[in-house]
Amino acid sequence: MGYGLIEVGSTQVRLLELGVLKLSPKKDPYERLQLIHKKVGQLIGEFRPDDFAIEAPFFGKNVQSMLKLGRAQGVAIASAMHSGIPVTEYSPKKVKLAITGNGNADKVQVWKMIQTILNIKSEIGHYDASDALAVAICHHFQDNSILNTNAKKLNGWGDYLKKNPGRIKLR
Amino acid sequence: MGYGLIEVGSTQVRLLELGVLKLSPKKDPYERLQLIHKKVGQLIGEFRPDDFAIEAPFFGKNVQSMLKLGRAQGVAIASAMHSGIPVTEYSPKKVKLAITGNGNADKVQVWKMIQTILNIKSEIGHYDASDALAVAICHHFQDNSILNTNAKKLNGWGDYLKKNPGRIKLR
Repeated sequence: MGYGLIEVGSTQVRLLELGVLKLSPKKDPYERLQLIHKKVGQLIGEFRPDDFAIEAPFFGKNVQSMLKLGRAQGVAIASAMHSGIPVTEYSPKKVKLAITGNGNADKVQVWKMIQTILNIKSEIGHYDASDALAVAICHHFQDNSILNTNAKKLNGWGDYLKKNPGRIKLR
Repeated sequence: MGYGLIEVGSTQVRLLELGVLKLSPKKDPYERLQLIHKKVGQLIGEFRPDDFAIEAPFFGKNVQSMLKLGRAQGVAIASAMHSGIPVTEYSPKKVKLAITGNGNADKVQVWKMIQTILNIKSEIGHYDASDALAVAICHHFQDNSILNTNAKKLNGWGDYLKKNPGRIKLR
C-alpha cells in the first residue's frame, strides 16, 4: 500500500510524507488489514489531513482480488471517516491525465512530473508510493479548479459535481 | 446489511439484537459506507462484544460488486479492529452446516433452527438479519467446540487452527 501526503500553501505544494506499507503475502489477511488500519490511523493522527483521496481500482482483476482490495480500501476509508475526513476517489486515468496531461501516461512519466511539481531530487523506490502521491496532487488540482474556475458560480458541492461530471466522487 | 448479536451463558444462548441496516441504492456509495461505519460502531459501543464474525462472500458475483462488498466489509472489520475485537470469517456453507447439519440448507431451514436454538417465537422480517444471526451462532458453536473437544490438548490458537483446518480464519 502506497501513501503520499502533501501540504498545499498559497503558492506552492510541498511533499510531507511518501512511503509504502509492505504487506507480506506470508502474513494472513486479517493481519494485513490490521497493518493498514494502524498505518492509516498513524498517518491521520500525525498529519491531520483535511482531505483523503484514493484511487479507484481497475475492474480487470478477478473477483477474489477485488474483494481483498475492497476490504483493504474499506479499512483505510473507515480511518478517514472515523476522523471526519471527506473521501474522494479518482480513476487511474483521471490521475494520470491531471498530472501529465495524458490519461495513458506510464508510471515513469507520472513520477517525472511529480518530481517537477514537488521539486524532488531523489529517485523513487516504489511506484506504489509515487502513484499514491499522484492521487494527492490530482485531488489538489481538482480542489484548486474549484477556486479558479467555479468559485463565483458555485452553489455548494452538488452544483460543483454537476459542473464536474468527470470527477468520480464517493460521497 | 444484516446483524445479529447473541449472549452466551454457561447453559444457554440468548438473542440480544437482530436487525437490518437498509442501504438505499439511491444513496451514494460513500454515504452507505458511512452508515455502516456508524451502525457497527454503535452496536460495538452498546453491546461491547467479545468476538466479531462475518460471512465470507461467494465468488460468483462480478468484480464491481465484489469491490463494493469488500469495502463494506472492510469498514465493518475496521470498527471491530478499532475496539480490539478479533474477527473471524465463515463460508456460507460452513454456517449452514453448523446450524442445520446441512451445508446446502435454505434460508427458511436455517431460520427455523435459529428459532429453536434461541427460543424465538416471532417471524423474521429480513433473511439478511437471520443470516447474520446464523454466523454468530456458528461462531459460538466453534468456540464451544474448542472448550468441549480440544481444551486439554490445545496449545494456543495456532494449534487450534491446525486441528480445525475447515475453519476459515481471517486473523
